[in-house]
Amino acid sequence: MRLSRYFLPVTKETPADAEVISHKLMLRAGLVRQTSAGIYAWLPLGFRVLRKIEQIVREEQDRAGAIEMLMPTIQSAELWRESGRYDAYGPEMLRIADRSDRDLLYGPTNEEVITSLFKDGAKSYRDLPRNLYHIQWKFRDERRPRFGVMRGREFLMKDAYSFDLDEAGGRISYNKMFVAYLRTFARMGLRAMPMQADTGPIGGDLSHEFIVLAPSGESEVFFHESWEQPRTAEDYAVDVEDSAALQAFVDSMTADYAATDEKRDEAREAEMGDALRESRGVEVGHIFFFGEKYSKAMGLKVSGPDGDMVTPLMGSYGIGVSRLVGAIIEASHDDDGIVWPESVAPYKIGLINMRADDETCTAAADDLYARLEAAGVEVLYDDRDERGGAKFATMDVIGLPWQLIVGPRGLEKGVVELKNRATGERVELAPELAIGKLSG
Amino acid sequence: MRLSRYFLPVTKETPADAEVISHKLMLRAGLVRQTSAGIYAWLPLGFRVLRKIEQIVREEQDRAGAIEMLMPTIQSAELWRESGRYDAYGPEMLRIADRSDRDLLYGPTNEEVITSLFKDGAKSYRDLPRNLYHIQWKFRDERRPRFGVMRGREFLMKDAYSFDLDEAGGRISYNKMFVAYLRTFARMGLRAMPMQADTGPIGGDLSHEFIVLAPSGESEVFFHESWEQPRTAEDYAVDVEDSAALQAFVDSMTADYAATDEKRDEAREAEMGDALRESRGVEVGHIFFFGEKYSKAMGLKVSGPDGDMVTPLMGSYGIGVSRLVGAIIEASHDDDGIVWPESVAPYKIGLINMRADDETCTAAADDLYARLEAAGVEVLYDDRDERGGAKFATMDVIGLPWQLIVGPRGLEKGVVELKNRATGERVELAPELAIGKLSG
Repeated sequence: MRLSRYFLPVTKETPADAEVISHKLMLRAGLVRQTSAGIYAWLPLGFRVLRKIEQIVREEQDRAGAIEMLMPTIQSAELWRESGRYDAYGPEMLRIADRSDRDLLYGPTNEEVITSLFKDGAKSYRDLPRNLYHIQWKFRDERRPRFGVMRGREFLMKDAYSFDLDEAGGRISYNKMFVAYLRTFARMGLRAMPMQADTGPIGGDLSHEFIVLAPSGESEVFFHESWEQPRTAEDYAVDVEDSAALQAFVDSMTADYAATDEKRDEAREAEMGDALRESRGVEVGHIFFFGEKYSKAMGLKVSGPDGDMVTPLMGSYGIGVSRLVGAIIEASHDDDGIVWPESVAPYKIGLINMRADDETCTAAADDLYARLEAAGVEVLYDDRDERGGAKFATMDVIGLPWQLIVGPRGLEKGVVELKNRATGERVELAPELAIGKLSG
Repeated sequence: MRLSRYFLPVTKETPADAEVISHKLMLRAGLVRQTSAGIYAWLPLGFRVLRKIEQIVREEQDRAGAIEMLMPTIQSAELWRESGRYDAYGPEMLRIADRSDRDLLYGPTNEEVITSLFKDGAKSYRDLPRNLYHIQWKFRDERRPRFGVMRGREFLMKDAYSFDLDEAGGRISYNKMFVAYLRTFARMGLRAMPMQADTGPIGGDLSHEFIVLAPSGESEVFFHESWEQPRTAEDYAVDVEDSAALQAFVDSMTADYAATDEKRDEAREAEMGDALRESRGVEVGHIFFFGEKYSKAMGLKVSGPDGDMVTPLMGSYGIGVSRLVGAIIEASHDDDGIVWPESVAPYKIGLINMRADDETCTAAADDLYARLEAAGVEVLYDDRDERGGAKFATMDVIGLPWQLIVGPRGLEKGVVELKNRATGERVELAPELAIGKLSG
């Protein structure tokens, strides 16, 4: 993409209500703009990051055997009366009356809708187990929306719902999501720690939050230093179809201490001594097994192998897709701006033409752009007639992993400059070599 | 995907309010379920179709130089008061009060939001021309939602917005979208006719609707028989960067008569004689050039090349993405069910194991499934232990382009059967040859 034809409103100033670094950087880098309190438009560059995160989430859900579908944003209040949550859910629920004065709401979550759809479609034990998910906008009318997309009112969430015939099956479904979550966050360059959690208004007795360290986090967290080791998705390789291996793996992942403020274990912390770490964290995922809670209230039953009717056991599994954009920036930035992990970067390379008024320089930059595009590499090409300093500042704040700089002095020597955004390392090399290195 | 692990609730009966064939077939084929009046959940198979249509729309928007972003579903009433449309827009607008009693609404369209975002981000003539689009859920509180997803209340729409410095530029932006629309619908196997349209509440003086023939269509249409010729995207190849060629092409495309009831030209119809055709049609796209209407009302100005401030001219361009699922079925079905064009089919192949209780048969079908998947072909594999007749009926109603049938008698002869859903043609061939043919 040529910047001369793009829409990238970078800014220096940020409004006073942008308190946390991710919020400031998302505004400065032209990723989002607030359109109402706690409601954001995703500008082209931010939209690309959102889609990359969404795609990683999708791939790991699919890999775990979950099936994608899509539920609507507007739900009928009737269903929530069946489950008993319509009155219980507080003012965070956006309640709406349509032109015929029927009660609707903007879904904050989808247990009721999925239970009703599954009841309509599943008739026998052969239709289980299943895990159905969607990635859809939700609304929670926060009293104090803040931290940009980290605690917005309209937000994009992946929510999955599992249906099993018995407790053992439900545990397998839960464990599959547990592993999928570890892989998902690791692929985004995040260290997300699973912590035992209270189940709150969702109900049930088994639940983990996945928490990423961030100074803007809503919760205080305590963990063993072993969590500071970087991990990749390969560290979470386990055959999820082998339920014993799966359970052993989940047990090993919860063996290292990690707890929110409410769930601290003073005895274990005392044993740890110097290895105990303390920080603030932001929740990026939350998984629940709640058994019969919704299936029973809403009359979901299937015929069992012996002909008796069985009430399926359910779990639900959320990932805050739009919140992750903020969480990743909290975890990966420096004084100059965002430092995107390559897996979620909006473009891999920022190509800078230092002298758009110089024919030789422009011809060389155009040529590099055409060849990188032809190689299928995602390039944002700053072809505008602006000063080099402004171009560098823009590229630094938007945080693409590589900057490829084409200037007249380098070209005289037959080289271009390649800068690694994360390390700051710069090398001069022939254009051919740059293309080879960046197309890999 | 194995049907034994999928969620595909096909049904024989449809509710009485499903009047039109596309609505009936979408319910029977397990593509959607209504969750409230005019609001639908997209079940896994329907979701795949929706995504394929969305992707074709996206590719053609990108090809025309439009830039993707994403605006929220919930908008502030304040912006609509600026444009003057808040009071003018009737009861179709879903008006919402949040917990602080601020007026919000579920966006039925996005002229106000995009104008406000562009005003914030574009400062000079160098920031024009631009065309920004998104694909997002909209809500229109229809008094009588009907025809399933064809006239639902919550619907998925692609809407693009162009900004130009002058009338000539605005016309070029309009023409680029005109061509993109013809290509988009042709790629979905649809014959969509551009018809001059009234601009209605959007305002402006240049507008075309793109209408597909369907008995359930809301409008009566009149056209020259030449529109009955099938056309592909290749018939709409024109260099959109050459504005004279572009205009000539658009002129040629509007030369053949096609008019809605309100825009009939009796003189031209009389000339046509036998070549005049009459039918009902459904609108799948609508494009508008409305000039200063929103930019002026909302104070959008950029500095011109000579330093004077210029009010950009705008157009907007909509495609009904979810409605297209219904429109395609209206245009492509038979007595047995849906007949998907390959470009939007949820899977390319339905693989049928005729005897899941027979080891040899199952081994052969499993092997075909594994090899087709490995070749990157999208296969829905009916591996369930059911009667062959029920499997055929399911495959016919869901309308995948190819059925590959594995049965014990064929295997004895070393063949499987391949059925083309559209033509009904069946051939027997060796499994190797089937894989070769279907992987192409």
